[in-house]
Amino acid sequence: MDPLLQFLLALAIIVFAAKTFGYLSTRLGQPAVLGQLLIGLILGPTVLNMLHWPIFAGGHLEETLNYLAHLGVLLLMFVAGLEVDLEAMARSGHPAVWAGVLGALVPVGLGALAALPFGYGWREGLFVGLMLAATSVSISAQTMLELGVLRSRVGMALLGAAVVDDVLVILLLSTFTAVIAGTGGGTLSVLAVVVRMLLFLVLATVVGIRFFSRVAQRVDRLPISEGVASLAVVIILTYAWAAEVLGGVAAITGAFLAGLAFARSPLRHHLETRMHTLAYAWLVPVFFVNIGLEANARAIGVTGLPFTLLILLAALLSKVVGCGMGGLLGRLSPRESLVLGVGMISRGEVGLIVASLGLSIGLIEEEVFASIVVMVLVTTLVTPILLRLLYRKREESPDAG
Amino acid sequence: MDPLLQFLLALAIIVFAAKTFGYLSTRLGQPAVLGQLLIGLILGPTVLNMLHWPIFAGGHLEETLNYLAHLGVLLLMFVAGLEVDLEAMARSGHPAVWAGVLGALVPVGLGALAALPFGYGWREGLFVGLMLAATSVSISAQTMLELGVLRSRVGMALLGAAVVDDVLVILLLSTFTAVIAGTGGGTLSVLAVVVRMLLFLVLATVVGIRFFSRVAQRVDRLPISEGVASLAVVIILTYAWAAEVLGGVAAITGAFLAGLAFARSPLRHHLETRMHTLAYAWLVPVFFVNIGLEANARAIGVTGLPFTLLILLAALLSKVVGCGMGGLLGRLSPRESLVLGVGMISRGEVGLIVASLGLSIGLIEEEVFASIVVMVLVTTLVTPILLRLLYRKREESPDAG
Repeated sequence: MDPLLQFLLALAIIVFAAKTFGYLSTRLGQPAVLGQLLIGLILGPTVLNMLHWPIFAGGHLEETLNYLAHLGVLLLMFVAGLEVDLEAMARSGHPAVWAGVLGALVPVGLGALAALPFGYGWREGLFVGLMLAATSVSISAQTMLELGVLRSRVGMALLGAAVVDDVLVILLLSTFTAVIAGTGGGTLSVLAVVVRMLLFLVLATVVGIRFFSRVAQRVDRLPISEGVASLAVVIILTYAWAAEVLGGVAAITGAFLAGLAFARSPLRHHLETRMHTLAYAWLVPVFFVNIGLEANARAIGVTGLPFTLLILLAALLSKVVGCGMGGLLGRLSPRESLVLGVGMISRGEVGLIVASLGLSIGLIEEEVFASIVVMVLVTTLVTPILLRLLYRKREESPDAG
Repeated sequence: MDPLLQFLLALAIIVFAAKTFGYLSTRLGQPAVLGQLLIGLILGPTVLNMLHWPIFAGGHLEETLNYLAHLGVLLLMFVAGLEVDLEAMARSGHPAVWAGVLGALVPVGLGALAALPFGYGWREGLFVGLMLAATSVSISAQTMLELGVLRSRVGMALLGAAVVDDVLVILLLSTFTAVIAGTGGGTLSVLAVVVRMLLFLVLATVVGIRFFSRVAQRVDRLPISEGVASLAVVIILTYAWAAEVLGGVAAITGAFLAGLAFARSPLRHHLETRMHTLAYAWLVPVFFVNIGLEANARAIGVTGLPFTLLILLAALLSKVVGCGMGGLLGRLSPRESLVLGVGMISRGEVGLIVASLGLSIGLIEEEVFASIVVMVLVTTLVTPILLRLLYRKREESPDAG
């Protein structure tokens, strides 16, 4: 078949499958992401190996889908940046900050410890830890909403902590990639790399917050169809490119900063609706399915099983311990701290984004990538179940409020 | 540079350039399309040859951009289909059919006449004519959309006529290749091709109108983010693919039929806003710039100039005369018929597809191919200008409605 026709057909299958299985997942009380990852795994080399069917032979289908997936994740990070209210984050208080910080640092440490026995060095170990560091809060938020406890002290702490650990992971990732990329020249070159990164982060943030909203407001008044959305696309692409080329940090960091620049813009709502369409109509589903298309769970095999199990254990324990400790330090009750820790277990987009990055720069191999995908799937499945159990237990105990 | 980073940078440049020059074009009273095509020519091999700059070396940048451009034209045709009022088109049925038929046959004749003085036989001559026969309606549709006259009697006739001539060209091409190649089957295989095509067109239209809006309304009630837009994307991709693979017609015809299916849906407005964002934020600008990126006007040289000019003249005159006559026979006013004829001048994908086929079976040589590319570009550049002039003239004349 003509490569273009292959592309059209593959894209139709992927978007349809993603949306269908995402919906089925929500019907089962799970987040849509879960279904999209699962159908990706099924379509991928783990089961059906779709991209290697004879009708998709020849051409550069995988590469093209990768590019589209990348555009999807950039849009996702832009929308995430758009959602960050820096001021509200400062107000969200002690438990959120403590749980966010410890809930990111403890997984990094435990992840590294879990990786070391398998012959990985400190670099790879820390990177494995980094992949465990970011909570995906949507599943817990949804569960607590259904339980009617999202607006409680724990619920607010959970939402705040998730933002804190997202930002922290992006900062850590930026530092990590910048240092890794610049290693070889000793302390001085590492220093240069860090300075370059900080310079980029600060400059990009200042330029973004100072100018982007103003420019967008001017563009909005001109007769340019989808002018503001188009400007946002150009800014995302440019910031993503510049983040890697000028700042030495991940492209997604650039996209996140671009979103941050519009977080307090009068055009935020205008942008939110349009970027939501651009992201979720096809590109973000392509990103999630593509993770499954790239992962081969068979690569884990029997030999990789102990590693996967240990990673999974580290992922589960580190959040409960780290965020639980954070909750206690932030003066939540022991039971509240436990709920907070359990609510932070589920991982999602950010972990997968970090993992994709690690795979693309050759820092982790296919086996580790597959383990991380499995970890994301399991933590996502387990969190709402554990949360429900905790609240049921509380309801049964006589001292519960 | 990493291919992905090349892709991000190239895309940023293309979208930014398209929107900027599109805006400048509107400031000069021209449609945005014109500025986008011109900046494409400037960025392309004719002047700057952007895609062959050292920073863009390696990778499959051209192919990826081609795919995105193709998605852009599919969205464009879907939106055009969405705008079609089938009842109004049925009411304007006669001019559409007459203009479609005469607008395909007159170019075949005039094209053959133009080729004969240059030593081409009747076969090659008729084939040159065939390359001039198919209108690419997207540019005229876009211009008339901007002018707010797409839903007028002429606008509807234009869209209808373009469908008719597309179908007719494919019929003629099938007949031509079947006869030329003398592929055994003769009349019977030609008949099979025609039956298959008609079957697809009828079935795709009936299925679309009967089911798509209903399914979309159900999807709209489900908790699927951007569900309706996503469904539309899947339908566009599937119809575009099926048009070529199952129906043997151009992919854009499939996308157009998909849009048609939603034209009378209660969700039409919902879809319009979202597909507008998907189309105009980046993909349609990429399509228009990509036309210039693909063409090299320098390839023609001095010796090919007289032939190119004569072909160009035949292309311009034949559509104005053929479609204009068709409009008159369909009981449009003389001015409406002129607008219709002029609106049908622009050529595009189908002409290029026919040309590629001729080149591949050795019926035309590279020089003729380059001439056809230039003809496509010039007719595309000229059509919006002429249309604008006609409407400006009408606005100024006291008898205008």
